[in-house]
Amino acid sequence: MPHWKRSVATVCLSGTLPDKLEAAAAAGFDAVEIFENDLLTYEGTAAEAGRLCSDLGLEVALFQPFRDFEAMPEPQRARNLDRAERKFDTMHQLGARMVLVCSNVQAAALPEPERAADDLREMAERAARRGLLVGYEALAWGTRVNRWRQAWEIVQRADHPALGLILDSFHTLCLGDDLSGLTEAVPAEKLFFVQLADAPRLSMDPLSWSRHHRSFPGQGELPVGAFLRDVLAAGYRGPLSLEIFNDEFRSAPARRIARDGLRGLIWAEEAAGVTELPASPVLSGVEFVEFAVDATAAEELGAFLGTLGFRLAGRHRSKAVTLHRNGDVNLVLNAEPDSAASERFEQHGPCVCAMGFRVDDPGRALARAEALLSPTFRERTGEGERRIPAVRAPDGTLVYLIEATETATRRIWEDDFHLEPPPAADAPEPGRFGGVDHVAQALTADMMDSFSLFYRAVFGLEPNQAWELPDPYGLVRSRAFTGGHGSVRLPLNTSESGRTGTGRFVSAFAGAGVHHIAFCTADAAAATEAAAERGAPLLDIPGNYYEDLGARLGLDGETLAELRRHHLLFDRGDPAGGGGAFRHAYTLPFQDRFFFEVAERTGGYDGFGAANAGARMAAQQRPQRR
Amino acid sequence: MPHWKRSVATVCLSGTLPDKLEAAAAAGFDAVEIFENDLLTYEGTAAEAGRLCSDLGLEVALFQPFRDFEAMPEPQRARNLDRAERKFDTMHQLGARMVLVCSNVQAAALPEPERAADDLREMAERAARRGLLVGYEALAWGTRVNRWRQAWEIVQRADHPALGLILDSFHTLCLGDDLSGLTEAVPAEKLFFVQLADAPRLSMDPLSWSRHHRSFPGQGELPVGAFLRDVLAAGYRGPLSLEIFNDEFRSAPARRIARDGLRGLIWAEEAAGVTELPASPVLSGVEFVEFAVDATAAEELGAFLGTLGFRLAGRHRSKAVTLHRNGDVNLVLNAEPDSAASERFEQHGPCVCAMGFRVDDPGRALARAEALLSPTFRERTGEGERRIPAVRAPDGTLVYLIEATETATRRIWEDDFHLEPPPAADAPEPGRFGGVDHVAQALTADMMDSFSLFYRAVFGLEPNQAWELPDPYGLVRSRAFTGGHGSVRLPLNTSESGRTGTGRFVSAFAGAGVHHIAFCTADAAAATEAAAERGAPLLDIPGNYYEDLGARLGLDGETLAELRRHHLLFDRGDPAGGGGAFRHAYTLPFQDRFFFEVAERTGGYDGFGAANAGARMAAQQRPQRR
Repeated sequence: MPHWKRSVATVCLSGTLPDKLEAAAAAGFDAVEIFENDLLTYEGTAAEAGRLCSDLGLEVALFQPFRDFEAMPEPQRARNLDRAERKFDTMHQLGARMVLVCSNVQAAALPEPERAADDLREMAERAARRGLLVGYEALAWGTRVNRWRQAWEIVQRADHPALGLILDSFHTLCLGDDLSGLTEAVPAEKLFFVQLADAPRLSMDPLSWSRHHRSFPGQGELPVGAFLRDVLAAGYRGPLSLEIFNDEFRSAPARRIARDGLRGLIWAEEAAGVTELPASPVLSGVEFVEFAVDATAAEELGAFLGTLGFRLAGRHRSKAVTLHRNGDVNLVLNAEPDSAASERFEQHGPCVCAMGFRVDDPGRALARAEALLSPTFRERTGEGERRIPAVRAPDGTLVYLIEATETATRRIWEDDFHLEPPPAADAPEPGRFGGVDHVAQALTADMMDSFSLFYRAVFGLEPNQAWELPDPYGLVRSRAFTGGHGSVRLPLNTSESGRTGTGRFVSAFAGAGVHHIAFCTADAAAATEAAAERGAPLLDIPGNYYEDLGARLGLDGETLAELRRHHLLFDRGDPAGGGGAFRHAYTLPFQDRFFFEVAERTGGYDGFGAANAGARMAAQQRPQRR
Repeated sequence: MPHWKRSVATVCLSGTLPDKLEAAAAAGFDAVEIFENDLLTYEGTAAEAGRLCSDLGLEVALFQPFRDFEAMPEPQRARNLDRAERKFDTMHQLGARMVLVCSNVQAAALPEPERAADDLREMAERAARRGLLVGYEALAWGTRVNRWRQAWEIVQRADHPALGLILDSFHTLCLGDDLSGLTEAVPAEKLFFVQLADAPRLSMDPLSWSRHHRSFPGQGELPVGAFLRDVLAAGYRGPLSLEIFNDEFRSAPARRIARDGLRGLIWAEEAAGVTELPASPVLSGVEFVEFAVDATAAEELGAFLGTLGFRLAGRHRSKAVTLHRNGDVNLVLNAEPDSAASERFEQHGPCVCAMGFRVDDPGRALARAEALLSPTFRERTGEGERRIPAVRAPDGTLVYLIEATETATRRIWEDDFHLEPPPAADAPEPGRFGGVDHVAQALTADMMDSFSLFYRAVFGLEPNQAWELPDPYGLVRSRAFTGGHGSVRLPLNTSESGRTGTGRFVSAFAGAGVHHIAFCTADAAAATEAAAERGAPLLDIPGNYYEDLGARLGLDGETLAELRRHHLLFDRGDPAGGGGAFRHAYTLPFQDRFFFEVAERTGGYDGFGAANAGARMAAQQRPQRR
């Protein structure tokens, strides 16, 4: 167990103050920062709020913020000290020992550091009389003070035992600053409090960036791990506290967001090298994808998959579950009544309810998931059947963990299924599927943050470049998480518009779900030709796409005609990023829900054909011939 | 009629290419820019797209964009010229005479202007052979060229009759640049094309700003009118074309957005001083607000209003409509079956279906509305009743135009209603309402742009400062439009979260609607006291709000107790902005829909109590005692 408390600011979470506190406690936080506005809108007294915290086992680690205090001319200076006294009354009732003073953003703030130091010394003296502490923090957009070194200069100059420095990773990192020199400059006992926040790298003013786009550690791109390492190296042992202003978090369910927060904090501690978790699994592919269906949908989806070359390869020994195979791809159709899958089918209709990842050590992967607060799952099994451990993703679907040895993977199918004899070794399998290329999910914007942290922290997947894809009815934002040397690729898509393909899918699913699955093949043309012969409903792409492709990439007419005949889109990789080429085709959706893709990567192509997404999405929005 | 064509780029509008073209034609545009991606995703050929345009009476004024062309090293240079030839083929089929080349954003672009000039000359020469033209535009984030003067230098150096300059208001204005020197520098015949876009002032990089947040003229804050004036002063007489990349427009219905676009363009022409429209009305207040109800809702709402001191003041001579009055406020309850109001009631339940603005000249106001493409409306009337002209707002509600003379306003009530005798002149009317202080609407984000342009262009209302208000379940963005020296105040609120009060209201209304109405009074304490005595359901505000108010504004205990006893929130105006004070109280919502506010402004207070919105919205999200 770490030697510090883990804390979260109430401003991170949605709802009333009691909602927020209950969510923080349920996630497992030890302490909270009370954001003043949450108290102002609370029906009970400050003392009642304090009792609620202690009943929930939460320490009130900080009361915040106290704004625009220091270095003001009179009469504002005297008024500010009166205001501080009133807030000390509130803190006393609340049971908060420390108040955060953030650097003044008023234009009227005086430039002299000694004026700020005098005021903070006076405030600290008054706080000390009540047994309280004052922490001073540099806001990145403070009028006179916006770097931690300036704040420290003032704290040092004020020289009062009840006054110390507060550090916030966002305010430091958003300016491109870091904590170098902290250990030498600041004694550990003057480091009063530390707030952690991550954020995506955005080119906007720090104030707007901070107010709307902060995120939990691991959800953004700032070096929060290094920041935390430096803080602890300087001897700080107080609470580590999350302070996130995020438009999505404000409206998402408080309990999910609180758990994401604690997961992010635990991840940051590992990234800082100050705690050790079971190592991330070494991934080597997606062993299977499982669909929730009923008997009718199983038959219809089985037939649909049949046109893509999937044959019925096995029946489960004890459940209404079938296995469908093409090459090395296993798709499981689960129609077992009264199961987790059937519950999902009842809610959403036919949908993906689970995936199986091949990992080096399922036990270690499970232990890591548990350390990172992911619920784990063990299914009920028949006698002699294998019990495969699983992790629950943020949307409730399951990720099974399968040992990546040939013996182990063969055994999970042999033990659980009556397998059909495999096709003869020399049977022709045109465009045979070599594996699952990628599994794309569509999510609400707030689920995007939950999923990205889940994949990154629990499975060690890395975020790729983000894309904006033009659907005819709005933008789709896409970012893939990949790992295991490209053996696991998971694009996450979100759209603010409810009229895009992604938006409509998300509305139907009320949050998140697998939107399409791509199978890799060494010969996409052969695969689509065979599929077309079997009656697969392939997506038509307009001729104008091919004309532009020719102009853009200098392809000759024969190549273009060949691509078009096979319903194939084409992309070339950026030579700077490895190059290569990508041929891919799409099916129409199965029952207006998910669809499939056939993907051929050559020469180290590492993308997903983003340049073709506009053409594909426009074609999908059009009624197509079947 | 102006001497130029009005054009819109297909990228402004949602849907397929035919959807976009039909919307542009329906709005009344003369021409379009074909955004290449819209053609690539079109099922038909370029020639078919061209025929569709001409069938709809639309000239194809521009084909765009042709990217990353000039000043590239070989072999890219030769490939780019090949690419241009392929696009000339497409343009030929499409019937587009001009292509837009935007300045190169590739890092590899060479710095020498003569290299760019050589390439553009060669491209223009090839274009000329086909009877085509090339326009060159500086992108604000071009690698070597990002100002119009640089683009002009290159065009001038290339010196080819088929090559000219394209100007885009966004690319110029977003860099803080303008067109000074244009007339002197550039001959009119070298100004090939002009694109217009407005945008809110945002502190982010020009690329993100441009791709997501452009807006139609009049919806943003850039000096588009002055830009247009300068362009026309330089002798340009080609099409004026809108090119807007906006995330909301991409998903909103194409026909509404196209009409907004043309309205914005007409407004910009007026702002540039090059066309004359009937002048904006001089506003002097809201004469009435009308609710769509049925008989039951009329009774219930009448009783609710009764607790706020409204008495039944009249019954309509021929319709199921009643008039309710408190002081100078007129509220109309319209339960007439088979009317516009009843249609709205059927769709949305009890809601505001109309407002009446007092204007100096209803005929001129109506003519201005028509010139700005607003549908107008004349209701069916009984014999001897007044026919009041009305304008239809973007959500389909009506704004009636009432001549602002005492005779005229008295007559609309006397002619149409059997009026009850007024209360005795000396009858006590505690906290009597002096008028409608403001009418607040809740809208989806894309309706916000439609409404802001409607109020600004048709009625001359001015946008006030924008606010972000913290609801416990997400942010609410608010901006008021005001005019007539504060006699008409219309806050517009939007929220991305569906769980905020605003978001829930918008979902229920599927777009837009009046969320609350504030009545002004000279004595808010007397008004709420009388209302409470009559059983009005007033919103309780927690004690912590008053404690903080005391600390913030230095109010004494007695004042605070008095405010709290009267359910009053309190705010002081920014001394820099006029100062003054604001006392205001809220009712609970009527049938979980709209609510009312009592507002007392003193000393020139000009806001809406934004500092209190957090406390108010949290209280509204809480179940309250009735």
